[in-house]
Amino acid sequence: MPTPSENDNWLNNLDISQSPGQTSSRVASRGHVAQEEMDFSHGDVTAFAPPDWALPTFISSYEDGGHTAYTKYRGNPVVCERVAENIGNWVPPPIESPSQIIITPGTQAGLFLALSALVGQGGLAAVVKPDYFGNRRVLQYIGAEIVDIDLKYDDLDEPASLDLEAFEQALQKDHVQVLCLSNPNNPTGCIYPPDVTTQIAAICRNAGTFLVVDELYCRLIYDGRSFTHMRSLDGMADSVLTLLGPSKMESLSGFRLGVAIGPSWLIDKMEKLLSIVSLRAPGYAQMLLTKWLTEPPEWIEARIQAHQQLRDSSVRQLRELEGLTVRVPEGGSYLFPRLPPLAISTEDFVARLAEQERIFVTPGTEFGPTSTNSFRINFSQHAAQQEDALGRLVRFAKQFAT
Amino acid sequence: MPTPSENDNWLNNLDISQSPGQTSSRVASRGHVAQEEMDFSHGDVTAFAPPDWALPTFISSYEDGGHTAYTKYRGNPVVCERVAENIGNWVPPPIESPSQIIITPGTQAGLFLALSALVGQGGLAAVVKPDYFGNRRVLQYIGAEIVDIDLKYDDLDEPASLDLEAFEQALQKDHVQVLCLSNPNNPTGCIYPPDVTTQIAAICRNAGTFLVVDELYCRLIYDGRSFTHMRSLDGMADSVLTLLGPSKMESLSGFRLGVAIGPSWLIDKMEKLLSIVSLRAPGYAQMLLTKWLTEPPEWIEARIQAHQQLRDSSVRQLRELEGLTVRVPEGGSYLFPRLPPLAISTEDFVARLAEQERIFVTPGTEFGPTSTNSFRINFSQHAAQQEDALGRLVRFAKQFAT
Repeated sequence: MPTPSENDNWLNNLDISQSPGQTSSRVASRGHVAQEEMDFSHGDVTAFAPPDWALPTFISSYEDGGHTAYTKYRGNPVVCERVAENIGNWVPPPIESPSQIIITPGTQAGLFLALSALVGQGGLAAVVKPDYFGNRRVLQYIGAEIVDIDLKYDDLDEPASLDLEAFEQALQKDHVQVLCLSNPNNPTGCIYPPDVTTQIAAICRNAGTFLVVDELYCRLIYDGRSFTHMRSLDGMADSVLTLLGPSKMESLSGFRLGVAIGPSWLIDKMEKLLSIVSLRAPGYAQMLLTKWLTEPPEWIEARIQAHQQLRDSSVRQLRELEGLTVRVPEGGSYLFPRLPPLAISTEDFVARLAEQERIFVTPGTEFGPTSTNSFRINFSQHAAQQEDALGRLVRFAKQFAT
Repeated sequence: MPTPSENDNWLNNLDISQSPGQTSSRVASRGHVAQEEMDFSHGDVTAFAPPDWALPTFISSYEDGGHTAYTKYRGNPVVCERVAENIGNWVPPPIESPSQIIITPGTQAGLFLALSALVGQGGLAAVVKPDYFGNRRVLQYIGAEIVDIDLKYDDLDEPASLDLEAFEQALQKDHVQVLCLSNPNNPTGCIYPPDVTTQIAAICRNAGTFLVVDELYCRLIYDGRSFTHMRSLDGMADSVLTLLGPSKMESLSGFRLGVAIGPSWLIDKMEKLLSIVSLRAPGYAQMLLTKWLTEPPEWIEARIQAHQQLRDSSVRQLRELEGLTVRVPEGGSYLFPRLPPLAISTEDFVARLAEQERIFVTPGTEFGPTSTNSFRINFSQHAAQQEDALGRLVRFAKQFAT
């Protein structure tokens, strides 16, 4: 078990300089951004505007200030009720009670609260590699031990899978309190096929391992593929926490809202933790969630189609770099290409690309310690800007071909 | 040092049901609130509207989404720069660099980040009693040991003070890493007079104890009194963290914004912790802080005068209950009356007042374990509603006079 000073050392050594949103100078120099600057570390909300109801709902929430400025820690009860109803209508099974919902200041806060409630210092948690960087970071902060489970995604023509053997081996040695994963996977865009989700659920059930699943991108699924929500699987109601939110496909990231769905006992504990770390999600913004998940099917379909085109064109462009491999994502808006051997390290490549071309990508090592020759881009961007930037990226990389 | 399971037990036993905002049914039943319902647990933002620039600034920030939706974890650099400038112009000394500022999702988050960065598990921290409930809660969550320092506020005609002898005694025994206090004090409204702030600063400096001071109410000071900002005192630049924000006098609570000012090494560490607990404060809302602290003097003066009248009328009304004692606050918008002996416990009184009169107050024990016969009200309310509710409160209490 780590001592406080080990944890403190870990924090002092934590490098957040390459994390998404930390690199670009865009926000720093409003109006003075070089035209060619391209921040691939997150999506561009001006390329895909929020739904029409977003601003008017916020304004009416603001005008209704007396009922919306302050809310219960777990969220405005009006919002929790509506969200429970809308999620239940959208993805079975229905949510029995609003007590199974908590509104969080962003999905990251939901992840922090869930893992803090489920795993103690010295506890054991399984994390997929590569996966969302927050999983590992939160667990390291808590002082938990981490078991790595490899995502199998190298075979470009096969559905993705997990190294479930490694997971079962770890379970034989010790009790793993939590398995933590994103689906669609961030950064690769893989979706776990039904046989894999069923196996994951069965293993977790047998071992008494709780599942924390980030399904933030589950509305952006391509090629008409089906998607399995872990909470829909048999017998999982009391052992899954699902993280959702309107910040990705719906472009509402600037409002800082997340939603978590899980058993009441866990939501209660998360609310207590939220009262400690930041009291509540932004009050006025919470009201937006009453409209969320009610978008017409045409709106959703159009958004998926537009992203699918961007996916295809950007994969095509990246593959112009000889030796680069990249999987065509089944969901989400990320690409996680693997660079061919270059004359410089990936770290150097990312740094020079930022400095010389003003193109910001996220190094693979943010998502797993062994993803040393990958980088992540978010392709939810203006098409023309993206085409130009990817063209420059490929030309830039070609200089270093070996 | 507490073990994880002790901490877990503490969390399971934590009662948040009586905390501000948790009690009223107001948010739960929009449009169906009984007319006489009165939530004294926080201020009413419809009684004191946000500044005129609030909504337009938010809308323009939303429309400028590409530059504002995502920000660096510590906040949009444009915002940090402006806030540093405005704070420096308002309260000397000037802030040397925006690296001494972090924007947090509410002031509670700032408090959590600061205490987590400064105090480890098993560390020692001094907390004033009574004081803001979050101080104690965060430290208990961290697993720190707490030294109580009494606030001396019983003599209604004397300036408030701290039991500095007890603080010095604690310092002789062990190293106290942090002293944590609010000024104006929440819940009593006391302001520490200059000789006390100077003594606190001197003791902290000598002992190497870091000072975390919540000055959230420092713009709402009555009777033309002067107010000492701890960071302005000699030699304190590297050992004070100041928590500020626009959620109180400026009524911007629904946007969920806090600001912390401290030495860069501490702000860096707080940013790393923020990356773990919730990434960033709400992006669009952050832009409001560029206008904050630029309100014209007349606006500030009018707001102070209106609150001072509410303070005086509510103190007068409360004193109609024989045996009740209450200090006239020197700042802030809270009253912390002490009930006379009643035939029922304070806990019962608070519960019945809520149930029978729909009047919600916060029990004194939220602010310190020994404040068993006090309760807190926030008098930043519509005058007529407040007058009616306080009249009912006093009549209700009289039933239980002994």
